[in-house]
Amino acid sequence: MDNKKLIVPKKLQGFWELKPKEQMLFSSLLNKIEEVFRANCFVPLDTPVLEYSEVLLAKSGGDVDKEIYRFSKGSTDICMRYDLTVPLARFVSMYKEELNFPFKRYQIGKVYRGERPQKGRFREFYQCDADIIGKEALSIVADAECVNLYEKCFKALGLDVEIAVSNRKIIAGYIEGIQKDDKTTDILVALDKLDKIGTEETIKLLQEIGLTSKESENLIKITKSKGSLEEVVYSLKSYSENNLFIEGIEELKELSKYINLLGTTSVVFDISIIRGHNYYTGSVFEVFLKNRREIALGGGGRYENLCGYFSETKMPGVGMSIGITRLFDLLLKENYFDLDSFKDIDCAIITFDETFDKGLEIMSKLRENGVKAECFYENKSFKSKMKEANRRDVKYVVIIGEDEVNSQIYTLKNMQTAEQSKLSLKELVEKIKNDRM
Amino acid sequence: MDNKKLIVPKKLQGFWELKPKEQMLFSSLLNKIEEVFRANCFVPLDTPVLEYSEVLLAKSGGDVDKEIYRFSKGSTDICMRYDLTVPLARFVSMYKEELNFPFKRYQIGKVYRGERPQKGRFREFYQCDADIIGKEALSIVADAECVNLYEKCFKALGLDVEIAVSNRKIIAGYIEGIQKDDKTTDILVALDKLDKIGTEETIKLLQEIGLTSKESENLIKITKSKGSLEEVVYSLKSYSENNLFIEGIEELKELSKYINLLGTTSVVFDISIIRGHNYYTGSVFEVFLKNRREIALGGGGRYENLCGYFSETKMPGVGMSIGITRLFDLLLKENYFDLDSFKDIDCAIITFDETFDKGLEIMSKLRENGVKAECFYENKSFKSKMKEANRRDVKYVVIIGEDEVNSQIYTLKNMQTAEQSKLSLKELVEKIKNDRM
Repeated sequence: MDNKKLIVPKKLQGFWELKPKEQMLFSSLLNKIEEVFRANCFVPLDTPVLEYSEVLLAKSGGDVDKEIYRFSKGSTDICMRYDLTVPLARFVSMYKEELNFPFKRYQIGKVYRGERPQKGRFREFYQCDADIIGKEALSIVADAECVNLYEKCFKALGLDVEIAVSNRKIIAGYIEGIQKDDKTTDILVALDKLDKIGTEETIKLLQEIGLTSKESENLIKITKSKGSLEEVVYSLKSYSENNLFIEGIEELKELSKYINLLGTTSVVFDISIIRGHNYYTGSVFEVFLKNRREIALGGGGRYENLCGYFSETKMPGVGMSIGITRLFDLLLKENYFDLDSFKDIDCAIITFDETFDKGLEIMSKLRENGVKAECFYENKSFKSKMKEANRRDVKYVVIIGEDEVNSQIYTLKNMQTAEQSKLSLKELVEKIKNDRM
Repeated sequence: MDNKKLIVPKKLQGFWELKPKEQMLFSSLLNKIEEVFRANCFVPLDTPVLEYSEVLLAKSGGDVDKEIYRFSKGSTDICMRYDLTVPLARFVSMYKEELNFPFKRYQIGKVYRGERPQKGRFREFYQCDADIIGKEALSIVADAECVNLYEKCFKALGLDVEIAVSNRKIIAGYIEGIQKDDKTTDILVALDKLDKIGTEETIKLLQEIGLTSKESENLIKITKSKGSLEEVVYSLKSYSENNLFIEGIEELKELSKYINLLGTTSVVFDISIIRGHNYYTGSVFEVFLKNRREIALGGGGRYENLCGYFSETKMPGVGMSIGITRLFDLLLKENYFDLDSFKDIDCAIITFDETFDKGLEIMSKLRENGVKAECFYENKSFKSKMKEANRRDVKYVVIIGEDEVNSQIYTLKNMQTAEQSKLSLKELVEKIKNDRM
């Protein structure tokens, strides 16, 4: 091997991986989210990372987005999944006769987008998705469940959030009412810029699209409606008598009722929430870090027909998604986490040559009792083992000398306080485990 | 959408996905393995699914195996990982100045091999790997840890296994002793056929390679050595005085000592365990279902230098791997699991029109207290809700009528026994949770 040229070990640009402590922390967050999904009666799904291109690109009629990883293997045209929603649609269409409806599934998995790497954007990242799919119909209770799920997930992660909720029928209904629904996409694109370019510029854009000055002003006022349900409903009421507009308001009221019944508290109604995806047709949600509106943590909403490309059966659904990779990356960079408090082991067992075998036995017994104990076996001398424990920032060491072997009473040293105590195996377990809580 | 041609929803051939109950079960097995890894002080790693081809194919000098998924994105030559070991080598080489050594990591993840689909083989499957990597040196205690880890993992899965252990230096040393080490690979390939073609045919093969009849017979006897440490050592002793041969036996003895100190009981020493991979250089292990030698559940061993292609630093390692997808697929097909006992929900809440809101509140409170409760919201009538609970094979229903709302005492019905009881919210939680244990 010595005469071989070495290859530089490097990972692909824009791909993400964590060092052990960070990974322990990240995994613990994924576990917390998963626990919330489960506690709320969502079942797990784990679809393949690869799909037939024909299936994954059904929506775009086979057109390939540059972002998508697509390749051939033999004669098979394959794509890596870019989200977890199309695989869900494929799965539900395939197994719709066997599943329970409403079908509540979650999936936590990596998705792939070969976009240009930039701050906070990755080419491989985790999505945590939960969706509720109905057969033919789906109660708006499901929308409330998704909003409630957001609150519970972020509570489990220890983050204060604000869940902004709207209903796309309100703006769509107003546009329909003024008979500009052939321009809906242009209008939504303009409204989406409101925050950035301000009211006046947005009004100009809307007028260029063909709205009167009054219509433009009204639409801006509608979009800016924000607050409690009562405030929003009151401020919206006068603007339109269009059926879709009124339906949107009624749905918002109903959603609000169920959100409250489920005990959700961090909601604000905010009509400016539009969500880019064209397929949202009713409720839409977006979650922000409290008081930091610039940091979106996820979004979701109601879509009228999940499986339209695969099946004649109408499958309305509602879903929520957490962009956990981006969120974690941000919190990590802001030193939000106390990484030092994450220990890969609970205690190190320090032995002498002649007590090493006993040390392994004690290690084995501690582990059996739920204590992550490591009996250092690479460093040879007592001194170098202690040094290693220090270097690794281990909180406890268990010292095993001849006396300890004979008495079966072991010395536990707290490396932070230098406090020492003499304990039996049972007491060691209790002390170390209690301390970890 | 109605005028669009529907696309047949199908998943790629040779790819694997599970329906919800099976997935719940499979996820629970992965969790159990992960818990064992963690309890034994292994830290998690989660490397990208994609790597530079140059890195992933370092071993083969860039030659592509037909099995590997390889493609280009822009000007980048990319491979999907086909195991978790090469990514580990890449990771350790990159971060060797920051990691703790011995570096004990586990990774549970999907790997990709585009081989021809056949019974029990998949193109995307999970591997559960745990490895211990040393810097310059690594004690044989690490090998014992891996053997012990196997026992603990399969115990956690509820499976009786036999862990067959050998050391490749024994056969390699014998071959060196008879000065046939230029033919080692051919000889190992022949020995690997022993089980299938029998002693006589194997001797013929060995003689064709150039061994004398005595050497061939001895090698067969060595390979067939199996039993307790004492039995194997006794039966091997006389065959060679080669240093490597003797070193192999000494390592086996040392490994056996540590295996015992760690409390491992399901080990058999078996010199016929060779393992295909060329990179194993010392201890080798293979795990079988007890009394079903045809079913290999995983294997592993010691390799002298993990990172030879990436780094000048010598990194000896030892690892174990569980082929969980194949194992699960097999157990599922043999109806090993009681899938019916897996419930996606603990109880259904059945309401009338006028008590539905109260039902949602109770659902929310039950969930907060760890009970997976679902308040059916799609079926409208009481009768159709009960029917749905039956169809979904729910064990408990909580019935909420006007009386229940007024008294705050709810009716719990066990759908299996038809037994009914009247319980407060607190009692409901206790009863349902106790029953789940």
